[in-house]
Amino acid sequence: MTEFGFIDSIKTLFAPLPDNGFEGIGDDCSVLSVGGGESLVFTADLLTEGVHFLRTATSPRELGRKSLAVNLSDVAAMGARPVATLLSIALPADAADAWAAEFMLGYRELSEEFGVTLAGGDTTRSLSGLTINVTAIGRAADAHLKRRSDARPGDVIFTAGELGTSGAGLQDILAGRCDTPAAAVHRNPQPQVAEGIWLGSRPEVRAMMDLSDGLASDLKHILDRSGVGAEVAVEQIPAAPGADIRMAACSGEDYKLLLTAAPEAAERLAADFRIRFGTPLHPIGRITSGPGLVWLRNGKPEPLDWHGFEHY
Amino acid sequence: MTEFGFIDSIKTLFAPLPDNGFEGIGDDCSVLSVGGGESLVFTADLLTEGVHFLRTATSPRELGRKSLAVNLSDVAAMGARPVATLLSIALPADAADAWAAEFMLGYRELSEEFGVTLAGGDTTRSLSGLTINVTAIGRAADAHLKRRSDARPGDVIFTAGELGTSGAGLQDILAGRCDTPAAAVHRNPQPQVAEGIWLGSRPEVRAMMDLSDGLASDLKHILDRSGVGAEVAVEQIPAAPGADIRMAACSGEDYKLLLTAAPEAAERLAADFRIRFGTPLHPIGRITSGPGLVWLRNGKPEPLDWHGFEHY
Repeated sequence: MTEFGFIDSIKTLFAPLPDNGFEGIGDDCSVLSVGGGESLVFTADLLTEGVHFLRTATSPRELGRKSLAVNLSDVAAMGARPVATLLSIALPADAADAWAAEFMLGYRELSEEFGVTLAGGDTTRSLSGLTINVTAIGRAADAHLKRRSDARPGDVIFTAGELGTSGAGLQDILAGRCDTPAAAVHRNPQPQVAEGIWLGSRPEVRAMMDLSDGLASDLKHILDRSGVGAEVAVEQIPAAPGADIRMAACSGEDYKLLLTAAPEAAERLAADFRIRFGTPLHPIGRITSGPGLVWLRNGKPEPLDWHGFEHY
Repeated sequence: MTEFGFIDSIKTLFAPLPDNGFEGIGDDCSVLSVGGGESLVFTADLLTEGVHFLRTATSPRELGRKSLAVNLSDVAAMGARPVATLLSIALPADAADAWAAEFMLGYRELSEEFGVTLAGGDTTRSLSGLTINVTAIGRAADAHLKRRSDARPGDVIFTAGELGTSGAGLQDILAGRCDTPAAAVHRNPQPQVAEGIWLGSRPEVRAMMDLSDGLASDLKHILDRSGVGAEVAVEQIPAAPGADIRMAACSGEDYKLLLTAAPEAAERLAADFRIRFGTPLHPIGRITSGPGLVWLRNGKPEPLDWHGFEHY
């Protein structure tokens, strides 16, 4: 069974249970409205050695930052402000003490940068590899929450940054070049927390998520959840320096925001974003009535067997 | 560094950060007041293969139940009602598919029994052992929350059930006798959810926690956090059938509630508890002005080098 097959079977299995006010599984975070016009959001990410990271290719401090960053990105993708995390970490004997202390320094650095408190967790021995789970909690006004399910035909699709740097960095690392700028970005991604909160406050933003598995995979989640299709102009995909278009569309872990915006307000949104953050929103295509994702080159459909990132 | 040493160093490291309304680390759960007289509580437990469980000695269905049970117990220990969990699980190749499906059935059984929704999580491959992290979320009226820090001199100390069954079961399992009733309890503990919620509603209950590492260790957390001492009469410790007093005091994973109650209302509390649940609250001693935990035998202090449970 694939990971997504397993998740689908879990959703089916748990569907008859009471929801206790929580929205179901299928977005970057689950949502609980707590009254007073406010909601909390929750997300968890599990990182395992050899699957999500190689201890030989990343420092403990960078891994501490990254473990937190990927979760903050999920919170920001909802338009929410991250407020707290719970950190669980299983430490093999050769990663106790100095390694663990360095890991915590990195985790703390990024916690401090985004004003996030550590509200609990668990530490234990591991007989084999390192495993890290972070659960992140965010808060948002109900009206500011963004979901994957709210894209509408005609919406402009934007990415909130250039893509492919992390993928290029991963290639560098796997080739033994661990000291390139792209490799540093791969090991130390910066979540778009301020951008997510700001985009959350804009009513013309409809659907939003973060790009963790690559545009070619992740956009399909918005299409599936919203019951729409999309046309994406490949020449408009903003490939970062060192990445080609295909890498920008297919490699993962960029942790840039992907969003759709009401067409009549999209230009203004992009202009305001540039004023606020000094960087552009990149329009890459349009939501259609669908079905499916159509790649366009020079305005013409092009069949491309592009798909997202597989963890190494 | 020990686990507790590591946790202390983390607390120090994160103390200067903003708390965002969350109470600090050091109780069964962290607490966030969400307004309207209500709080949410959060806890996480990480279970790793070979440290917390042996796949040869437990079925996947039992492990699914236990992974959830230990977290529900932490929520109940605050006097809160568990409402949702996030489940992260790293699956090695030989535990995918059928094993994982059975695990989820067990997890669902107990979720259904306590009306808890599955609000998210993560699944991933593991190159080595199985690792499971559960984050549980509970709700309670602010006034019903119980903490470790509220014991006062004179309080009566109670356990909400007999102790030592799980420890006896672990001995059986390690001796290869996996089919004894005690072994079944060790693999399949029942969290005192209804009891915790009920005790939360009683204002005469002051401090509360769940017994996961053994009375000899866990009571010290209440004493430390409350700045008090205790006298415990060893002959009053309610040893379960098959366990002796020492095992009842020192073995772990019973997941019974440990609480202190105002002396003037303690007898009434125990009587009401028996009416409500059909089982007694067991008085085992008194909170003192301290310091430290004093074991009494026939009313006389007895120096005992008793300490809690170490995971196998």
